[in-house]
Amino acid sequence: MATEVTAAQPSPAHLTPAQLLDKHRPTLDKALEAIRTRAYWSPHPEHPKAYGESAAPDGLAAFEALRGRRFALEQPGTDDWTGEEVSPYGPELGITYPHPDVDVLLPAMRAALPSWRDAGPEVRAAVCLEILARISARTHEFAQAVMHTSGQAFMMAFQAGGPHAQDRGLEAVAYAYAEQVRTPQQAPWSKPQGKRDPLELTKSFTAVPRGVALVIGCNTFPTWNGYPGLFASLATGNPVLVKPHPRAVLPLALTVQVAREVLAEAGFPADLVCLAVDKPGEGLAKTLAVRPEVRIIDYTGSTAFGDWLETHARQAQVFTEKAGVNTVVIDSTDDYKGMLSNLAFSLSLYSGQMCTTPQNLLIPRDGITTDAGPKTYDEVVSDLSGAVGGLLGDDARANALLGAIVNPQVEERIEAASGLGEVALASRAVANPEFPGATVRTPVIVKLDGAKPDTEAVYLAECFGPVSFAVAVDSAAAAVELLRRTVRDKGAMTVGAYTTDPEVERLVEDACLEECAQLSLNLTGGVYVNQTAAFSDFHGSGGNPAANAALCDGAFVANRFRTVEVRRPV
Amino acid sequence: MATEVTAAQPSPAHLTPAQLLDKHRPTLDKALEAIRTRAYWSPHPEHPKAYGESAAPDGLAAFEALRGRRFALEQPGTDDWTGEEVSPYGPELGITYPHPDVDVLLPAMRAALPSWRDAGPEVRAAVCLEILARISARTHEFAQAVMHTSGQAFMMAFQAGGPHAQDRGLEAVAYAYAEQVRTPQQAPWSKPQGKRDPLELTKSFTAVPRGVALVIGCNTFPTWNGYPGLFASLATGNPVLVKPHPRAVLPLALTVQVAREVLAEAGFPADLVCLAVDKPGEGLAKTLAVRPEVRIIDYTGSTAFGDWLETHARQAQVFTEKAGVNTVVIDSTDDYKGMLSNLAFSLSLYSGQMCTTPQNLLIPRDGITTDAGPKTYDEVVSDLSGAVGGLLGDDARANALLGAIVNPQVEERIEAASGLGEVALASRAVANPEFPGATVRTPVIVKLDGAKPDTEAVYLAECFGPVSFAVAVDSAAAAVELLRRTVRDKGAMTVGAYTTDPEVERLVEDACLEECAQLSLNLTGGVYVNQTAAFSDFHGSGGNPAANAALCDGAFVANRFRTVEVRRPV
Repeated sequence: MATEVTAAQPSPAHLTPAQLLDKHRPTLDKALEAIRTRAYWSPHPEHPKAYGESAAPDGLAAFEALRGRRFALEQPGTDDWTGEEVSPYGPELGITYPHPDVDVLLPAMRAALPSWRDAGPEVRAAVCLEILARISARTHEFAQAVMHTSGQAFMMAFQAGGPHAQDRGLEAVAYAYAEQVRTPQQAPWSKPQGKRDPLELTKSFTAVPRGVALVIGCNTFPTWNGYPGLFASLATGNPVLVKPHPRAVLPLALTVQVAREVLAEAGFPADLVCLAVDKPGEGLAKTLAVRPEVRIIDYTGSTAFGDWLETHARQAQVFTEKAGVNTVVIDSTDDYKGMLSNLAFSLSLYSGQMCTTPQNLLIPRDGITTDAGPKTYDEVVSDLSGAVGGLLGDDARANALLGAIVNPQVEERIEAASGLGEVALASRAVANPEFPGATVRTPVIVKLDGAKPDTEAVYLAECFGPVSFAVAVDSAAAAVELLRRTVRDKGAMTVGAYTTDPEVERLVEDACLEECAQLSLNLTGGVYVNQTAAFSDFHGSGGNPAANAALCDGAFVANRFRTVEVRRPV
Repeated sequence: MATEVTAAQPSPAHLTPAQLLDKHRPTLDKALEAIRTRAYWSPHPEHPKAYGESAAPDGLAAFEALRGRRFALEQPGTDDWTGEEVSPYGPELGITYPHPDVDVLLPAMRAALPSWRDAGPEVRAAVCLEILARISARTHEFAQAVMHTSGQAFMMAFQAGGPHAQDRGLEAVAYAYAEQVRTPQQAPWSKPQGKRDPLELTKSFTAVPRGVALVIGCNTFPTWNGYPGLFASLATGNPVLVKPHPRAVLPLALTVQVAREVLAEAGFPADLVCLAVDKPGEGLAKTLAVRPEVRIIDYTGSTAFGDWLETHARQAQVFTEKAGVNTVVIDSTDDYKGMLSNLAFSLSLYSGQMCTTPQNLLIPRDGITTDAGPKTYDEVVSDLSGAVGGLLGDDARANALLGAIVNPQVEERIEAASGLGEVALASRAVANPEFPGATVRTPVIVKLDGAKPDTEAVYLAECFGPVSFAVAVDSAAAAVELLRRTVRDKGAMTVGAYTTDPEVERLVEDACLEECAQLSLNLTGGVYVNQTAAFSDFHGSGGNPAANAALCDGAFVANRFRTVEVRRPV
């Protein structure tokens, strides 16, 4: 029988609110400044070496020590243990997690609410920042956990699963704090009455949480996509129940463990943050989503389940990030080589298993103008294929960029892609000497004629994974029209465009403003269309079918709490 | 055949953005300051005499000139004329309004969107403030229109339909402006790369509207309840289609007329604000609510239709204010006389036809303590009945407070009330010499024993109009428990409480924090539980079944627009 890893049992309240505020107020202020200026900022180092000499081996050892055991959390209402994570790199993790009796767990979480509500926005923000700081200190351990659940390569798991996710969590705390303190906690009110005495009241305003918040995690970015909702809800006073994807439990289980530890040390009920892991085929998310205690849901995943949540979880505020079809319009460029290498990287990173990876590359069939002379459609596709091939020619580099295929369905889509049209670049299986069990695949690029009606069903469906379509279109204007239709009907997390023509740039920009999509223009250097920076870039727009919310803005936090006013005569 | 009243045909763009900003920026800044401090503030005078010597007769004359005619608006897609308003004071208004062919009108409104979007948040705010300023200048005319559609007495129609409604509109503009400018329009971004050159981008952020916004007006407060949604949507860039209650068209038709006039003068399409009046039994609101162009809906009215909108208008952000059951807990007071007169006024104002009027007065069956000695349940009810009787004993004063009954259903509920329990105060019909056609009724107070199970169905149903229940409860604690259950199950726009006991005060406050209701404590002077002041008080909480939004906060505006980012290399 597996032995239990017991959560730390801290003595209660050895972190006072004053200590936490002293420690974290400067970081909160910088975050508040960053979301206002949108300038570059992060308190979380991106480089693995920044975490100290022994951090990498320590993190790996900590991860290894978690394997093959129970992951104990001392939550109420645990009625069983469950978990069957298998690393996309091969090994089974062998970790089991508490399975909840929701009739016990949810009331316990609800009971934890009042003291957290009464703590107020500033103390809640400070506690959230302490949680993030402790997660940050364990970034190497989290990187291993993200790598071995999502299949991301180490460096990406480290950065996207570590500092970038922590940034997004901190950003959400900053927005939540700012929103709650827009109204003062106390206000005097005096209304003149001419010659009579003024009417006078004192008013108090309290940010009150909605109830239990449910975070439904995804397989590919458990922390990056989970933290915004988790921290936005917690910072606005709501207990948070985290329901990870069954294949990516560990990164969020560690997060819950750290949150519970910090909450207890700060004198709050640990049950403000709990974990709910379902048994195979149980469908726990559906059960939880319609519970009356659950008043907020954050979800990242398939459109089908996102739509189900929006339709059925009517008692809750539902924030969804679903599927979309991302487009790049290729009209012209003054840096052909830069464009090709930038696109090649975007298509390759994490084998295209990102909600932000471009899928459809719209290229005029008569070709494009570039600083290297005019290029035909065939040349552009061939040169891009060459750029991808060059980028991934070396197996070590390919493994470092691609990571592992997250599930067999992605691999099936790669295989099926060759039947969808003329293959410009075939996918290659890359051997991974360190993890022979990993499925590592390079991208496939398929040529499609956008004017043929039967191809539309192909390129207008999301094909999640390393499959891109080079769609020949009649003109730049036709490309913009197709872009517009794609965003409107299918949604998009990202749009890219390459053009040196101000008129085409205007058309693309207008389409993005009208269909509500985030646009990256002429990226040829080290910034990629599929990457966004917290505090500066919005992830998704919340205004097209790919997502009903953006990370992170006022709307993402404003309805997670309500303000209750009490007015009294002076 | 009726002659047409043609809208003014201004020469286009004779109000430049710079002029509008010069004129209105100080007011906007004061509004922004007020929503931050929650101090008393209003730029709109409450006293009718503040509008000038001739304003009252001019307003009446302007109102009379509208009667018996077509109310022309030069909107596209008018396929008929409709309207059958009858003043609750008796006379038919005889005004007909354009009936829309929605297949023509909605696309025309959608086409007006881009130039309004491109104007930016500050110009939009200035245009909205000009609309409000012109409405303010015509407050006497609006007062007549509100009086003769809602049945409010003149002074209330003047204040609630005029300055208070304009305040709520301005408040919404201020919130909308603040929300949009939280993100700068342009931002440089530079990410250090160690010894390499930094990554540099310029980013632009544009607030983009969601689409056409629909405002579905109510009978009792056409402007007060209509302006927040109307101005919040318009200020965030959305064209607004106003669908008034068929019995209260004129105040919103005048509003649309003024808005169209100002928009055209400022060089924007007048079709950014249009009117949709339905024919009897047409159910136009249902048709409009599910149109794909309609992306925002603001609604005030019955729970049944509010629930229908929330369920069916899934393409839109839906803001609803529905029915609720408002409670006052009466535990103890140190100003018995003040409490009685305050409550008497609250029950009487506009014959209780306010969403904020108290319905259930919870009184311990063993009586309460007061500065005038202990009072039994019977004494409290009898003294309150006496206070109401005294307040309304004089017919002139009664008419000035009560106004007219808005529709026959309210009168039916008054008649039925006497069958619900022991009548402590019977309703009296008051003659109105000026308007003999008006139905004017004083409040009825019915005694109910809260411990009897069969009474619960009576007092837990909303009984809209001047019907209150004096519910005998076992104790203050039982009162709070019933309050809690009432808010949770039925919703509440307001809660009142009278107590000198800190423990009872704490219990009531806790219940309001947990069930999310706005609380007024120990009001004994000239502030009433059913009145809220814009810029300071929240109307509704958005956190209980009575309304899914509060007037006005960040959540009320934040999701009416989205932010589209365009990033480019430097």
